[in-house]
Amino acid sequence: MASDKQNFGLIGLAVMGENLALNIERNGFSMSVYNRSRDKTDKFLATRAAGKDFKGTFTIADFVASLERPRKILIMVKAGAPVDAVIEELKPFLDEGDIIIDGGNSLYNDTDRRTVELEKINLKFIGMGVSGGEEGALNGPSMMPGGQKSAYAEIEPIVTKIAAQVDDGACVTYIGKGSAGHYVKMVHNGIEYGDMQLIAEAYDLLSTGLGLSAAELHETFTAWRTSELDSYLIDITADIFTKIDDLTGDALVNKILDAAGQKGTGKWTVQSAFDLGVPIPTMIAAVTARVMSSYKEERVAASKVLKSSTSGKYEGDRQEFIDAVRDALYCSKICSYAQGMALLGAASRDFGYDLNLGEIARIWKGGCIIRAAFLDKIKLAFQRNPQLSNLLVDPDFKETILTKESAWRKVVIAAAQLGIPIPAFSASLDYFDSYRRDRLPQNLTQAQRDYFGAHTYERTDKPRGEFFHTEWMK
Amino acid sequence: MASDKQNFGLIGLAVMGENLALNIERNGFSMSVYNRSRDKTDKFLATRAAGKDFKGTFTIADFVASLERPRKILIMVKAGAPVDAVIEELKPFLDEGDIIIDGGNSLYNDTDRRTVELEKINLKFIGMGVSGGEEGALNGPSMMPGGQKSAYAEIEPIVTKIAAQVDDGACVTYIGKGSAGHYVKMVHNGIEYGDMQLIAEAYDLLSTGLGLSAAELHETFTAWRTSELDSYLIDITADIFTKIDDLTGDALVNKILDAAGQKGTGKWTVQSAFDLGVPIPTMIAAVTARVMSSYKEERVAASKVLKSSTSGKYEGDRQEFIDAVRDALYCSKICSYAQGMALLGAASRDFGYDLNLGEIARIWKGGCIIRAAFLDKIKLAFQRNPQLSNLLVDPDFKETILTKESAWRKVVIAAAQLGIPIPAFSASLDYFDSYRRDRLPQNLTQAQRDYFGAHTYERTDKPRGEFFHTEWMK
Repeated sequence: MASDKQNFGLIGLAVMGENLALNIERNGFSMSVYNRSRDKTDKFLATRAAGKDFKGTFTIADFVASLERPRKILIMVKAGAPVDAVIEELKPFLDEGDIIIDGGNSLYNDTDRRTVELEKINLKFIGMGVSGGEEGALNGPSMMPGGQKSAYAEIEPIVTKIAAQVDDGACVTYIGKGSAGHYVKMVHNGIEYGDMQLIAEAYDLLSTGLGLSAAELHETFTAWRTSELDSYLIDITADIFTKIDDLTGDALVNKILDAAGQKGTGKWTVQSAFDLGVPIPTMIAAVTARVMSSYKEERVAASKVLKSSTSGKYEGDRQEFIDAVRDALYCSKICSYAQGMALLGAASRDFGYDLNLGEIARIWKGGCIIRAAFLDKIKLAFQRNPQLSNLLVDPDFKETILTKESAWRKVVIAAAQLGIPIPAFSASLDYFDSYRRDRLPQNLTQAQRDYFGAHTYERTDKPRGEFFHTEWMK
Repeated sequence: MASDKQNFGLIGLAVMGENLALNIERNGFSMSVYNRSRDKTDKFLATRAAGKDFKGTFTIADFVASLERPRKILIMVKAGAPVDAVIEELKPFLDEGDIIIDGGNSLYNDTDRRTVELEKINLKFIGMGVSGGEEGALNGPSMMPGGQKSAYAEIEPIVTKIAAQVDDGACVTYIGKGSAGHYVKMVHNGIEYGDMQLIAEAYDLLSTGLGLSAAELHETFTAWRTSELDSYLIDITADIFTKIDDLTGDALVNKILDAAGQKGTGKWTVQSAFDLGVPIPTMIAAVTARVMSSYKEERVAASKVLKSSTSGKYEGDRQEFIDAVRDALYCSKICSYAQGMALLGAASRDFGYDLNLGEIARIWKGGCIIRAAFLDKIKLAFQRNPQLSNLLVDPDFKETILTKESAWRKVVIAAAQLGIPIPAFSASLDYFDSYRRDRLPQNLTQAQRDYFGAHTYERTDKPRGEFFHTEWMK
């Protein structure tokens, strides 16, 4: 059915929005675009969009009127109030069955609220996580759309084409109802925090502990590209060490201030994990490490006061240590993903998302920041056993981790000796050592709570759910 | 000025309420009490309150009418909606200047909201943290009242008398405006989580790592009572190991299920710390460890699959290891309190509480669950330097931690070798090693974020606040 209307609409021409628009148009879909400030639209049409099938619009009414029905409108504005503002502007002009897609990093609770509000007036809503940064948006991101299945069916031909493509398909799938897509994207970002912190700790061990230069670090990370660590983040890390600072001639990384920012998604992941009662210590350590890094001035002052007896230099075999750090990084990474997938499993049960964890691992194989060969192993683990309680007990991951375990411990031990902080490495090892313990010392914690607060306890020799209290003070 | 009215009112005759009521009356203040169910009031008056200066009331109107003005009404009901419900019931009967005191573990945001709502109708509101459990409530708790200073002046003579008394005064002080009291109580509870987890890890190292029996653990903890660890929680831990299970004749602690519950305050502390950007890894590890402990069935299953090469038994000198565990526990405890006090400092600045951190440490010296000789050292540290940025750089704590540092590292190393999880010990060591590092590896994190997301970075050789971006891919 021919139409003079455009196939797809996009609001918000910041870099992510522009790049997604270009990606969609390049894949054969005619586009309308709208931006709050007219200049941005004019400039886009005159430059990057020139000669392509774009229609620029300058009022919401014209924008909406230019689109074929059911309208498919992707919002790419800052998460929070701006999303609500755009939705409010759109509402009066939309018709039953039209679809609004929020492609930002919205908090999943907001997505649930918007879904309910829009369903009341017969509009459909898709909360869609988009990962891959600017480059992914342009050339193929990983996308995590959640919402009404019927709405997804309408956008499926488009998102399937614009997504990153890997050996087993496009990096997009229907995630689940309501906020499922934004929830999964949030956990993706939590995992990304974990990966980045683990790499930072490996870097610290090698540069501080072994004294490797940027050139040597480049070599090491380049070698790791062909190991089980093969991933986008390892790739760009190897690249980063080659960049020379124009001002000083030194490696640029050495000139960058060690104070890392954090946006909301890492913190939200932690909060949701506590709400759902899922331990995610590696990701928590990663978010905490960024917070700690921001105390630059206090740290500089403390470094002059708290002079340690530790040497900071590793004395053993260098290549053996480099290999052990690689193994420790990989074991810690497995723990981090085990936590992330367990969190998704809990969210799936609690929120009724009905997530397919193997399929989620699959769509992360390309396009997104955490893309890695490793994710195929996770896909396979959940294909082998969709009810897998934790990645650590999957036969393949179990073998790997038990093989590398002793190197992992060596690294944690060396770091404690050297005085090099490795919060995510050690949180991962403690996670592993806790998860495989049939008996943890919280029996004492329960005794204490019953002692001072009469909180009661359960017994090892009685059924769960039967509670006892003791008058400890006689 | 004589009056036939009662001095003080209390609503909510659960154990904490009853015990506080008895404490207040015993200290010379006449009391009115009210409870939603009449039975509870009747029973209280007929038993524990018999012959004492209590007036039982059975309607809110009678309750309010029985009190001298300005009325001072302590609410001891479950945090959340029940507090709002009681306030709504009270409102119609109160007069300008009357004071409502919420003595439960309310979320601080709720306290701020209630303060504003009540101020609008010229009522005063005190959010008061009460610590010490049932026993403290009866014989002298530690209390953290926040709200209008004029309201505190009205209740000061009462709370000063009923509080625990220590060498330098009563364990109560005016904390600050609005939600300051409940905020400080929340952090107190976060610290309590930390203390309990650190003791649990010490217990695990000694029982699993050294194979100490309950009797030997009792001896060890009894010896620690006279060390720098001297505290209520160490006291009750020593006691706990002496309790024999009537059913089996074994030590009772061995029969208690290792799955610990957690209430809201630990989680709230973590959330607030992330909101304020304060690293509190020891407390976070403590809350996470409780969450992990609750996965009992999964852990039992995993323990059969993930069989480690680690022996679990420490081979070195036993007494030396016991002493090292004691030192590691103390160093970790210092880190945990350093985090808690830093969090209070940030909250004081952000929320305008104007907290006196030394005075807060002082009122925790008695009555509450974390009471310890150690708190006097914290009081002194903040008296020496009220602007102290972190306890770790106080000269006294610095000396202590540097003296014990090598034992602390030995314990962390031994745990990694033995496969015993020590999440709070290692989070504490990583905190120490991060805080004293002038340079952390987050320069790499910033390079990565700039690489894939154009997030920009600062430079070590340029002023803070100047941001740079590099086209990393050339």
